[in-house]
Amino acid sequence: MSETKSQRPKRRFWGWGLESDELAPMEVAIVKGMMARLGLAATELPRPPVEDDFSLPAPRVAPPSSLASAFSSTAHDRLTHSYGKSFADSVRMWNRDVRTPPDWVAFPDGEQAIADVLDWAGRENVAVVPYGGGSSVCGGVEPAVGDAYRATVSLDLERLNRVLEIDRASRSARIEAGILGPELEAQLRPHGLTLRHFPQSLQFSTLGGWIVTRSGGHYATLYTHIDEFVQSVRMVAPAGVLETRRLPGGGAGPDPNRLVTGSEGVLGVVTEAWMRLQDRPRFRASASVRFRDVMVAANCVRALAQSGLNPTNCRLLDPAEVAFAGVGDGTSPMLVLGFESADHALHAWMGRALELVRDFGGEYDAAAGERSMRSAAPDDEGEHRKGAAGQWRDAFIRMPYWRDPMVGAGAILDTFETAITWDRFESFYRGVLDELGAAIRRATDRPGSVSCRFTHVYPDGPAPYFTYAALGSDRGDLASSLAAWREIKLAANDVVTRLGGTVTHHHAVGRDHRTGYEQESSSLYRAALGAAKASLDPQGILNPGVLIDPVDRPVGITGALGPRSR
Amino acid sequence: MSETKSQRPKRRFWGWGLESDELAPMEVAIVKGMMARLGLAATELPRPPVEDDFSLPAPRVAPPSSLASAFSSTAHDRLTHSYGKSFADSVRMWNRDVRTPPDWVAFPDGEQAIADVLDWAGRENVAVVPYGGGSSVCGGVEPAVGDAYRATVSLDLERLNRVLEIDRASRSARIEAGILGPELEAQLRPHGLTLRHFPQSLQFSTLGGWIVTRSGGHYATLYTHIDEFVQSVRMVAPAGVLETRRLPGGGAGPDPNRLVTGSEGVLGVVTEAWMRLQDRPRFRASASVRFRDVMVAANCVRALAQSGLNPTNCRLLDPAEVAFAGVGDGTSPMLVLGFESADHALHAWMGRALELVRDFGGEYDAAAGERSMRSAAPDDEGEHRKGAAGQWRDAFIRMPYWRDPMVGAGAILDTFETAITWDRFESFYRGVLDELGAAIRRATDRPGSVSCRFTHVYPDGPAPYFTYAALGSDRGDLASSLAAWREIKLAANDVVTRLGGTVTHHHAVGRDHRTGYEQESSSLYRAALGAAKASLDPQGILNPGVLIDPVDRPVGITGALGPRSR
Repeated sequence: MSETKSQRPKRRFWGWGLESDELAPMEVAIVKGMMARLGLAATELPRPPVEDDFSLPAPRVAPPSSLASAFSSTAHDRLTHSYGKSFADSVRMWNRDVRTPPDWVAFPDGEQAIADVLDWAGRENVAVVPYGGGSSVCGGVEPAVGDAYRATVSLDLERLNRVLEIDRASRSARIEAGILGPELEAQLRPHGLTLRHFPQSLQFSTLGGWIVTRSGGHYATLYTHIDEFVQSVRMVAPAGVLETRRLPGGGAGPDPNRLVTGSEGVLGVVTEAWMRLQDRPRFRASASVRFRDVMVAANCVRALAQSGLNPTNCRLLDPAEVAFAGVGDGTSPMLVLGFESADHALHAWMGRALELVRDFGGEYDAAAGERSMRSAAPDDEGEHRKGAAGQWRDAFIRMPYWRDPMVGAGAILDTFETAITWDRFESFYRGVLDELGAAIRRATDRPGSVSCRFTHVYPDGPAPYFTYAALGSDRGDLASSLAAWREIKLAANDVVTRLGGTVTHHHAVGRDHRTGYEQESSSLYRAALGAAKASLDPQGILNPGVLIDPVDRPVGITGALGPRSR
Repeated sequence: MSETKSQRPKRRFWGWGLESDELAPMEVAIVKGMMARLGLAATELPRPPVEDDFSLPAPRVAPPSSLASAFSSTAHDRLTHSYGKSFADSVRMWNRDVRTPPDWVAFPDGEQAIADVLDWAGRENVAVVPYGGGSSVCGGVEPAVGDAYRATVSLDLERLNRVLEIDRASRSARIEAGILGPELEAQLRPHGLTLRHFPQSLQFSTLGGWIVTRSGGHYATLYTHIDEFVQSVRMVAPAGVLETRRLPGGGAGPDPNRLVTGSEGVLGVVTEAWMRLQDRPRFRASASVRFRDVMVAANCVRALAQSGLNPTNCRLLDPAEVAFAGVGDGTSPMLVLGFESADHALHAWMGRALELVRDFGGEYDAAAGERSMRSAAPDDEGEHRKGAAGQWRDAFIRMPYWRDPMVGAGAILDTFETAITWDRFESFYRGVLDELGAAIRRATDRPGSVSCRFTHVYPDGPAPYFTYAALGSDRGDLASSLAAWREIKLAANDVVTRLGGTVTHHHAVGRDHRTGYEQESSSLYRAALGAAKASLDPQGILNPGVLIDPVDRPVGITGALGPRSR
């Protein structure tokens, strides 16, 4: 096993989690059960890749001598930075298929080192891929940049991991971009503060990654994206440092923060941000609600979203999702409804929400509803997490761990999220389920399962999140599995954008969503964005192939490079 | 009096309002009283300008023959489109000083005509100034483009004034950009819907103008700017049509709507937008609160802004503002606090807010508070508007009418708004009052009055809005008045940005705020924006001199062109 220059606990280079992580025996049983239900021949979990399974080509350039100590070319570091954590990334790792590892991984210790790397890369025509936690599920951190560059460097920001300054009055903090979710919350907790941005990837994703991918978080309403919490941001671009001013709000020209949020590492390297924080909640109320029909439930969610009550949680699971998550028998949809506050008891809020629920025939455990509405002490979180909602949450956190071995055995497990206005929701939902089901049958010759939940809701529409499972190859032929996934993925990109949605609500465009992004967005806008990029990154060295291409340097969807099997 | 090609009731070319508007006798008395208190020698209101006071040069180009019927060069139309409604605009009109009238005013009837005008202007090197309601207070619609263009056209969007489509389920509507505030609300009312965007300029400002200036509206919290209500937008640029997708939320790349909001007519002409609407409120609660000290009051507002209660109104008036608005004796600050909802009674919301108010020693009329908290029928709006808050609101609407004659007599009356984080608020507030007071004394040799209110508040800071009055010239020498204003304005731009605020929270940059904008924003960002502009407007014909300059075509602050007096 090769060494790493990472200073963090050693990560699995091939999948989700740390090298030291293990599945509990009960989890192994769950995974084996899911494998059997999917129709996989294997009865044991597959053997994970080891570094010796790969032979990486030697780095094509030498790092600048002044920065050599920050550069690593160990197999572990290069493999860890070869892919993100999408299905395509996982299956290629299980297939021991790594074609475009970064030549080097750089671990800069601050802005000067980042600027030095960019200067050197610009001079040497080396592509630079900014890397936060590496949890991209759309090809956002893969150094697959084509032949136009001499080499590639993955720029890992892990050493920028501090909360630098806290402004209690404005409930804000200046925070370095490479900080992981748990590190961030741990450094804020002594101050009674929290960012309350809890994506599923929390453990292995960073503030900077959230900002440049417009990550979706904890709040189902109002503050759905990290964008809302960005007070100001600093970004080191090849052309210089772009810093926006700390302001609670403003109106001077197009909002510069909104050029950085969603820029996916193609405009510059975000190094720090002033973030808007929350007081830690002291009051909570939650309820699990059953409905007879998913469309009636959706209409109830619409009423809730338009009520101005702004629930913290408003997660509607369709019947298939309820079954998939194991929190019900799959005959009826379930709504997980929650409020939280650091300031006030929530009786009036939850009371009115439950009136709306009743208007739509929703049924909930009245006792549980009552219980949840009493004032809760901060350490009462355990109580709050019991029941179906808590069960769902546990599965949500562990799912990425369970997915890896199933993918290695031949399963296709993937998700995609979108947003759509209410007027089109019903036909959109049915259309996506139908077309995705058909695409799965075409690609795999078998039916798959597709389910849907709302992760976020707006007055003008929901953000549906689809999960599907299919049998890529019952015999573990992973190249076939990847090919089938690719067909399904392109169909998914197409159907969500053709039916009026967006190809991504909070996972970013990366490489894998570009077919949809180009369908949904204005070419004139992309040209304007390209012009802004040319001004900030004149040599076009930053994350080529992601979001938009530098002129004349097109790169395709994950898995489209070269032949599909080795 | 010359004719107009406008199809709307004829506007005053020289000031706020319609030609048919008159001050009520009581208003004349108010204005005369204010004039006397300011130290103006005049005891009668000055004679407003008439068209014959001006001799405009002949248009320098001929319009394209296919579009001739949409073009006007009457004195009325050219004068009306020569300026916005800032102090500098008003004083120059009273001084009969119009140096850069548009050569033509175009009234296109739709997107094709707009595209045709832009094509022609690009070929002929004619600058095009998009014009909505013309209520800019920062030089945003003035055709002062320097010598680099053959001529100028003011592009008036008044004929794009319809609500085109309503989506009740998503509570959204597709609306043309040239619609005025009252027209918009009138067309939405039969559907039970409202945009609830009520800037002071409502009567003479348009949806498109609000969007490109990031206008601030009705809601004191959450939805402070029009930006939040833009679901999608269409913009005709010289390079083509940029349309964003209707989505309730999204995360695909930097938000394209946020490139258009705040673009101030330099990137393209906004023609229509899908807007997020509100149900008409059925419940209201409001209270007027007195505090002993302005900083204690500000701390209370901070607690309210951080409480998650999200009041609709949370307007803090400092003692000077209370006196200026005539709603108190000026010894104590006043907070106007309000909630509204279409869904639920507001007892819990207002109840908790008043608890916070009491925590900070705020005093309110308990009976009034109680009365205001009962459920109110839709037609109960009159009741809601009584008392100090209603009085304040009436003065707010009429203020622009009162200002005009005072400016004509030699007064300087102006406002500027900003935003600042809470940690810096106290020193900022005191610093701005001090430095602005000193600048007024320097520029006019006399003290002026300065007051402040919060128009909007955020968890991380307030948006203070400063109003000042000074004596520009007791004898009505308006060129001196303009020169003095310019000195004060530059000092205001400097102090708000130097002390950490923004040069504009919701009035846009235009020409007059550029010194501050360049102080507060990153030159790298402005270069990126300039690159985006060059991609959308390759000939640089759109609104030159506003926000950012096309390369090599710098234009200065209002009043800086040529000598100051005729």
